[in-house]
Amino acid sequence: MSRKAVVLLSGGLDSTTVLAMARARGFSPVCLAVAYGQRHAVELERARKVAQAMGAPLRLVHMDLRAVGGSALTADIEVPKDRPAEEMAHGIPVTYVPARNTLLLALALGLAEVEGATDIFIGVNAVDYSGYPDCRPEFIHEFERLANLATRAGVEGQHFTVHAPLSGLTKADIIREGVRLGVDYSLTLSCYDPDPQGRACGRCDSCQLRRKGFTEAGVPDPTVYVEGAP
Amino acid sequence: MSRKAVVLLSGGLDSTTVLAMARARGFSPVCLAVAYGQRHAVELERARKVAQAMGAPLRLVHMDLRAVGGSALTADIEVPKDRPAEEMAHGIPVTYVPARNTLLLALALGLAEVEGATDIFIGVNAVDYSGYPDCRPEFIHEFERLANLATRAGVEGQHFTVHAPLSGLTKADIIREGVRLGVDYSLTLSCYDPDPQGRACGRCDSCQLRRKGFTEAGVPDPTVYVEGAP
Repeated sequence: MSRKAVVLLSGGLDSTTVLAMARARGFSPVCLAVAYGQRHAVELERARKVAQAMGAPLRLVHMDLRAVGGSALTADIEVPKDRPAEEMAHGIPVTYVPARNTLLLALALGLAEVEGATDIFIGVNAVDYSGYPDCRPEFIHEFERLANLATRAGVEGQHFTVHAPLSGLTKADIIREGVRLGVDYSLTLSCYDPDPQGRACGRCDSCQLRRKGFTEAGVPDPTVYVEGAP
Repeated sequence: MSRKAVVLLSGGLDSTTVLAMARARGFSPVCLAVAYGQRHAVELERARKVAQAMGAPLRLVHMDLRAVGGSALTADIEVPKDRPAEEMAHGIPVTYVPARNTLLLALALGLAEVEGATDIFIGVNAVDYSGYPDCRPEFIHEFERLANLATRAGVEGQHFTVHAPLSGLTKADIIREGVRLGVDYSLTLSCYDPDPQGRACGRCDSCQLRRKGFTEAGVPDPTVYVEGAP
């Protein structure tokens, strides 16, 4: 029997690729989607479809980060659009959600303990990304140390591993790997500000990084954009 | 103007004492209570009363850990009663909630960033406690390291400090300190399995540790117990 692993799944391009990679590595994935009050909650419906298409169970946890706020994704702050690449390459944008990946990984850790898993997969990457501090390899490494101190399983001698297999990859690399593994990217949604039907804006940082990835990978972009998107 | 600090407040004896200590150290506390699906959610009402009595603002965040389960506090598992002291001194009981303190601290960290605070207070103690791994000083220390890697504020050169001022104290020490600072313990609730009116069972580990603390401190126990409690 293959080992269980908890895979954080947002329904976006990165986490969907990670799900396929976890399976290709022989794990039996348990997906975890988190409804944290994100502006683009329509992504959760995509997470459900992706998990279903890949035959993996999905657990959904609610956590109200709107009560904390402080981000364009969880408060009434506008999502930046049409930012030039040079600007996107520097600084931390307002779409940063304070402590989000710490929270997502902590939920994955709790679920892993309950499921008897010691492997956690997260789709952070630190090349074509938004400069979020909690996507960097040093953060992931530090969380792994914490996981082993925080838990009953850790105290009892088990060892948690946090896998971030996209860490050193460009968006094009990620897409090529996903295509190789048979991922259907038409199911995924990366946009921070989609319309209610889940059509991508084409202009936020996430849409721009995604589109550039498809172009560079030479893979047709299956994303459905709103009318008038660039 | 005094510096803001985020204080995790459950409405129990420990966190209420910590709130008083944070204020005594000159901080301006912002309390954070978390409704995580705990069996003893009536404690949140006490948190509200405590914060009000101490003149501190309270933020409440919902997070559904029942969707994760795995604990007597968040699933249909019975809360152990009448355990002998020797048994309580060893192992990790079923009231352990997987990754709870990691989650609570991560929420406090997010709120601290939004509030512009870099100090977080948590009422863990590792003497008269239930053996939870995420109450130990090494866990708290590790979380502090993580906090400084996880956040925009950390990247921008600010330094988060996680204060666990009860860490080396016995329950009696904690109560003496609270009494010295004028804490009204009649407002607090420590029981894991109170009745709907918030009366303590007197028999769970938490009730036992609390009662022993009042006895050893020579302070009258103001707790309201259910009828028939030992």
